[in-house]
Amino acid sequence: MSKTKIRRPKAETPKGFRDYFGAEVTARKEMLDRIARVYHRYGFDPLETSAVETVEALGKFLPDVDRPNEGVFAWQEDDKDWLALRYDLTAPLARVAAQYRNDLPSPYRRYAMGPVWRNEKPGPGRFRQFYQCDADTVGASTVAADAEICAMLADVFEDLGLGGDFVVRINNRKVLNGVMEAAGVLDPEDPSKFEAERGIVLRAIDKLDRLGEDGVRALLGAGRKDESGDFTKGAGLPDSSADVVLAFTAARRDTGAETCAELRRLVGESKIGAEGVDELEEMAALLAAQGYGSDRVVIDPSVVRGLGYYTGPVFEAELTFEILDEKGRKRQFGSVAGGGRYDDLVKRFTGQAVPATGVSIGVDRLLAALTAKGRTETGSTGPVVVTVMDRARMADYQKMVGELRRAGIRAEVYLGNPKNFGNQLKYADKRGSPVAIIQGSDEAERGVVQIKDLVLGAKIAESATLEEWKDRPAQVEVPVTDLVATVKDMLGKDSL
Amino acid sequence: MSKTKIRRPKAETPKGFRDYFGAEVTARKEMLDRIARVYHRYGFDPLETSAVETVEALGKFLPDVDRPNEGVFAWQEDDKDWLALRYDLTAPLARVAAQYRNDLPSPYRRYAMGPVWRNEKPGPGRFRQFYQCDADTVGASTVAADAEICAMLADVFEDLGLGGDFVVRINNRKVLNGVMEAAGVLDPEDPSKFEAERGIVLRAIDKLDRLGEDGVRALLGAGRKDESGDFTKGAGLPDSSADVVLAFTAARRDTGAETCAELRRLVGESKIGAEGVDELEEMAALLAAQGYGSDRVVIDPSVVRGLGYYTGPVFEAELTFEILDEKGRKRQFGSVAGGGRYDDLVKRFTGQAVPATGVSIGVDRLLAALTAKGRTETGSTGPVVVTVMDRARMADYQKMVGELRRAGIRAEVYLGNPKNFGNQLKYADKRGSPVAIIQGSDEAERGVVQIKDLVLGAKIAESATLEEWKDRPAQVEVPVTDLVATVKDMLGKDSL
Repeated sequence: MSKTKIRRPKAETPKGFRDYFGAEVTARKEMLDRIARVYHRYGFDPLETSAVETVEALGKFLPDVDRPNEGVFAWQEDDKDWLALRYDLTAPLARVAAQYRNDLPSPYRRYAMGPVWRNEKPGPGRFRQFYQCDADTVGASTVAADAEICAMLADVFEDLGLGGDFVVRINNRKVLNGVMEAAGVLDPEDPSKFEAERGIVLRAIDKLDRLGEDGVRALLGAGRKDESGDFTKGAGLPDSSADVVLAFTAARRDTGAETCAELRRLVGESKIGAEGVDELEEMAALLAAQGYGSDRVVIDPSVVRGLGYYTGPVFEAELTFEILDEKGRKRQFGSVAGGGRYDDLVKRFTGQAVPATGVSIGVDRLLAALTAKGRTETGSTGPVVVTVMDRARMADYQKMVGELRRAGIRAEVYLGNPKNFGNQLKYADKRGSPVAIIQGSDEAERGVVQIKDLVLGAKIAESATLEEWKDRPAQVEVPVTDLVATVKDMLGKDSL
Repeated sequence: MSKTKIRRPKAETPKGFRDYFGAEVTARKEMLDRIARVYHRYGFDPLETSAVETVEALGKFLPDVDRPNEGVFAWQEDDKDWLALRYDLTAPLARVAAQYRNDLPSPYRRYAMGPVWRNEKPGPGRFRQFYQCDADTVGASTVAADAEICAMLADVFEDLGLGGDFVVRINNRKVLNGVMEAAGVLDPEDPSKFEAERGIVLRAIDKLDRLGEDGVRALLGAGRKDESGDFTKGAGLPDSSADVVLAFTAARRDTGAETCAELRRLVGESKIGAEGVDELEEMAALLAAQGYGSDRVVIDPSVVRGLGYYTGPVFEAELTFEILDEKGRKRQFGSVAGGGRYDDLVKRFTGQAVPATGVSIGVDRLLAALTAKGRTETGSTGPVVVTVMDRARMADYQKMVGELRRAGIRAEVYLGNPKNFGNQLKYADKRGSPVAIIQGSDEAERGVVQIKDLVLGAKIAESATLEEWKDRPAQVEVPVTDLVATVKDMLGKDSL
C-alpha cells in the first residue's frame, strides 16, 4: 500500500471572514426587519443588487483608502473584463440610478441591506465582509430630502428602543467650503486648485475625535508623526488658516441658532458658505416642525464625514450612552450611522448631475449597541427534545414530535446514537431545550410519557430550599394524549 | 480647453447578474421568512457563513460541471492563497462542521439562506448569482434524519399554500449501486473500478426527463450526439446491462410496497442494494407514521440526483400543477428542491466520516411557482403621497406626512420639483399610491386638505356607469385635524 500522506484541506474561514451562528443570525435579522419597517413606512422601496459589479462601474470611491483599487476583491474574466465585490451599497445604487433612469420613479427612495466586502488587512474586530443597511433618495435636490433621512434615522433608533440614547448631528459641506475659502484653500473661480490640500483638511477634521486639536493642527500644517514614527504629510496651511478651520470645528454653541450665527461669521464673504448655513437652518426648521428638536437632532460643525464625494448636508448618528472600553474606562458608545448629500455619483455614468442623499447604518456596531443595552430579540428558544429510549420505536417518537410541531411548538427527536441516555440529556442541555420527553417500553405499554421540565430542573439543581419546588415537580407522567397540552403548559410557565 | 473625450463607465450589471426591485425583494423575503419558520419549528438553527471561502476548503463538488474549478469565481490573494465565492451552501457547511466539531451540538441541525455564485456562461433565465435555501442535519446516521427532512419539506409546501400541488419523491443511492453491481459496473471488492462509468450512468439517468429513454440508452452505451452535433461519450455498457439500469429507472409501481418488491428483484444478490431497499422501506414507514402518505411522499426510482457525493437516500420535490411553457403547451411545473445523504464531505477535512443529510430549495423556481399560483405576498402598497402646492410651506407638508407615518401609514412628501402638479400625480401613479393629499394656499388658510382616493379614481376612470360611484366621491375635503382618520378610512375601504 502507498504510504503517501493524504494532504487534507484546512477547515478554516479565510483570514478576516467569520461565521454567524443561531442567535447571532436571528438577532441581526430581527434588527434589520425592524429597520426595514421604518424605511417602508417612509415610502422607501427595497433594492437588492448583485454582490458583483464591474470594476469600471464601482469607481474609486472607497472611503479612507489612499490606494483605491487595492481595497476591493477583484478578478479578471476570461473576456478580460474586471469584476469585483461591491465595497458599499452606494456605488451600486449610482449604477442602478443611471441604468434604469427611464423606468424608476423620480425621486427614487430606496433601501438596501446586505454584505459588502473590503480587501483590507484584517484585524481584531475588523472583518473583510460586513453588513450595511442604507437608505437613499435619488433625484431630490431639496434639503427636505436630507431632513427626511435624518428624521427617519431618529425613528429607527426610537423603534429599536434607543429613545433618549441617541443624537443625529448635522452639518453642511458647503459651510466647510466657505471656511476653506476663508482659509485660502478654495478659490471659487477655480475649484480644481488646492484639491489635494482640501482632501487633507477633510480627513484631518474627521480625525478630531481620535487625534485631538493638536494632532489635527499638525495635519493642517506641515504634517504629523504618529506614535509608530510614521509621518503623514500635512495640508501646509499657515497658522492663521488653521485657526479658521479649527474655529469651524469648534463652532457648536448651545442652540442651533447661535451655532449658525457663529458659522456665518466664520464663512465671511463666501457665497457657498452662506448657502450652506441657509441649508442648515432650513433642515433644522423642517425637522423642528415634525417634532425633532435639539434633543434628537443638533447642528454640529465638527461632523464632516471622511468621504470626498459629499456636496451638501452631512450627518452622523451617535449613541450617547456609556459603555466600558477594553480598559474598563467609561466612554460614549459613539457613531453608528452616517451619510449626506452626494450630487455627482450618477453623473459619472450619464454626464448629467443627479441630486442624491442617503445614510448608511453600521449594522454590526448598532447590533453591538443593542446587545449592550439588552435590547436584542433573538426569538430563539431551544427545541423540546423527544428522547429515544427504544430505537425500534422511532416511528412513535416521530409521531410525538410531529404533534408538537403541528401545535406550533419547536421540537425534535434525538437523532444521534441513542445508546447512552446521558448523552441525550447533555444534547438537550447544549441545545437549551426547555423540556425533554421520555418514553421507555414500560411507559409505552401503559400509554404514558414522562415530561421533564429542564428549566425548572436547572433551578432546582441550583436551589438550596428544595421544599419550595415540591408542589411543582420537575418531571411529570401524563397520558400520551395529554402530551401537547402539558408541554404547552410548561412552556408557558417557563416563559414567565 | 482640452477636447479630450471623457470616457464614461457603462451603467450595467455584469453579464449574468441582475438587480431585484421592490416587490421582487419583498416577495422573496416573505417566502424565505415562512420557510425559516418551518425550519425553526423543526429545531434547525440558522447559520450564515461568509460568501468567500478558500478554494481549498470549497473542494471540487460543483454539480454538473466536468471542469470543477472553472465553475467558481476565484482570485489569488497577495499571500498566494486562492479565495473563491461559494458555489453552494453545502461545502461551507462541511467546512463549518469540521472547524467547530468540538463546539457544535451533535447532531447539528442547521439552515442557511443566501446567494451562491457560479462562474458559468450566462443564458436566458440563467444567472451567475442566485439564492439557495438549505436545511441539513450533520451527525445523524439514521434514516430518521432523512425522513425528517422530507417531512419538513412537505410542511414547507403546505405552509406556502401549495398543499395538494406537490410530491416529494424519494430513492436511495444504495439501490442504484445494487443495480450497478447487477449491471456489472460496480465491483464490491474494489469500488474504485468503473468509477468513471458509474458517473456517466448517474448523469445519464438524471437526464431521463430531458433526453427520454433512447437518449439515456445511448449515453449508457457508446455515446450520444446532440442536436448541435456535439458528441458525449457514453458509459460503454453492453445492452443487457443498460436494460437493467433502465428497468431500475422504470421500477416505480402503484404502491411503495410494490415498487420496493420490484427493486429487490432488480438488485438481485447485491448486499448494498438490499440495504438500500430496507432504508427506503424504513423511511416510508416513518413518514407514514407521521401522516405523510403516498399523496405527499412516494418512492420513485427515477430520482437519482446528479451530484456524485450522495451515499444513501436521495429526494426531490416536484410541483405537480400545470403551467404553460414558452410555446403555450401545458407542462408540470417540476422540480423545486432536492437533496440527500452525503456521508463523506466532512471526512475530507478531518479524515473521520461524519454522516450528513440535507435539502436545498431552488429559491427562484419556488418563488416563480408561488407567483404562478398567485400565492406571493408582497406586502407592498404604494405610499400615500402628500403633494407640494406651495414650496414655501414644505414644513407643513412634512408635518402631515409625519402624522400619517406615526399612525403606521406608509406616506411620503413629493420631493421632486413641485412646479408641475401633473408630474406629482404621475409620480403618485408610478408609485402605486392609493391616496394623494393636496393643500394649496386657499385650503391652508381655511385649515382643510383635499384627499384624493386614487384607487377609486382609477375605477371611476374605467367605469361606464359613473352614477354607481356618486355616493362615494373620489376626492373629499376635510379639516386638517381629520387627515389621518380619513386616510385610514379610505385605505381600509380600498383594501376590501
